[in-house]
Amino acid sequence: MSSFVALHRAGDPLVLPNVWDVASARFLVEAGFPALGTTSLGVAAANGRPDGVGATAAETLRLTRSLVALPAYLTVDIETGSVEAAVGVAEAGAAGVNIEDAMGPAETHAALIRSVKREVPQLFVNARTDTHWQRPGDLAEAVSRVRRYADAGADGVFVPGLAEPADIAAVVAAVDVPVNILFLPGRHTVAALADLGVRRVSTGSLLFRAALAAALDTATAVRDGRATGLDLPTYPQVNVGPPTA
Amino acid sequence: MSSFVALHRAGDPLVLPNVWDVASARFLVEAGFPALGTTSLGVAAANGRPDGVGATAAETLRLTRSLVALPAYLTVDIETGSVEAAVGVAEAGAAGVNIEDAMGPAETHAALIRSVKREVPQLFVNARTDTHWQRPGDLAEAVSRVRRYADAGADGVFVPGLAEPADIAAVVAAVDVPVNILFLPGRHTVAALADLGVRRVSTGSLLFRAALAAALDTATAVRDGRATGLDLPTYPQVNVGPPTA
Repeated sequence: MSSFVALHRAGDPLVLPNVWDVASARFLVEAGFPALGTTSLGVAAANGRPDGVGATAAETLRLTRSLVALPAYLTVDIETGSVEAAVGVAEAGAAGVNIEDAMGPAETHAALIRSVKREVPQLFVNARTDTHWQRPGDLAEAVSRVRRYADAGADGVFVPGLAEPADIAAVVAAVDVPVNILFLPGRHTVAALADLGVRRVSTGSLLFRAALAAALDTATAVRDGRATGLDLPTYPQVNVGPPTA
Repeated sequence: MSSFVALHRAGDPLVLPNVWDVASARFLVEAGFPALGTTSLGVAAANGRPDGVGATAAETLRLTRSLVALPAYLTVDIETGSVEAAVGVAEAGAAGVNIEDAMGPAETHAALIRSVKREVPQLFVNARTDTHWQRPGDLAEAVSRVRRYADAGADGVFVPGLAEPADIAAVVAAVDVPVNILFLPGRHTVAALADLGVRRVSTGSLLFRAALAAALDTATAVRDGRATGLDLPTYPQVNVGPPTA
């Protein structure tokens, strides 16, 4: 874990792309990203399951086992999680997990964090609070929760949805552990987040949605006669046989 | 099968997008495509397996079982295939299969087509010959093979790689069954292929590659400070829970 921790640098945050399958992961490792997260939305949707309700534990563990072979640190989104799920991905070789409170009781989430850190202390636990999505504007609740989770042993905290610089600065000031912010297109730049003291910037479901949008746009362009000169990169051939239809 | 066959119209070909997971399939069905194919390259790469060597049979069957629930016909790429693989996807509810010869002996492929049609006569067998990729310019071999495969009972024939109008016209003239052409960006339009008598236009790995390219481009744009105003569609919510990171 120590080298993964070291990637969470003040002033030069870890930009963590979130992947949903082996191909997206390989592409991003080849592009030089030193660490990958998974996106539970992407893993769920790719497998035709609902997200956020613990319905993808088997798929998530299977994906984890494939991704740990890549030369990058891996942190796995285990939704609201469990000790079993955290131990499972840790034993598979993951460097970290993301566990969300989905705004259940803070003490329940803190207890889970403590239990996970007791069982697998080497695992980087990124504790997410969903206050900002479920109770927008309630910064006090977000600050209270990230403090509580850091006190419980979380190695990092995550408040997706935060956009205002003052709110981000308040969360950064509230804890000693690295703060993770979800990149919101049009609202953030990595440089501005770095200036605010953010040490991890993740993409959530952004890449997954960009991928699906591109597939859909390409398909309708072919159908509707707009695909006259699509310029696509060659698929990287790492461990994949000759291109076929 | 009969309604699926009817989508192969002279003058108004079936535009068949190829998918690799449940999410890509759902997106395309919502966009109005009446039928979907799978891409073995996409299924292989998404699962971290090599393509074209029969290493994804389990993943392909699992994906088939998820996709048949969608309101669209499904035809499954079973690479060089087997009677067992064809029966498996037929029993799962697929309307068709794509079986490639990868330029093995034509008589072997013809025998496989005959065996599949004997076991599952309702399954639309699209017989692909890899002549044009493995022996570019050998149109005589392609024509000979598609005739042979149609005589063996193939419901359609597929010569990926064909780009020249005269070559496509020659293949269309050679058989009574629908001819499938792989859409090559910058070389084809559906309208021009329709004029040549092509009755199915598939996208092969194009959408998968477009999706990965978009994910990669988005990730590097975030990292490198170019993602100032990415405009992304909302993820469709069909059977998927609330968006989470």
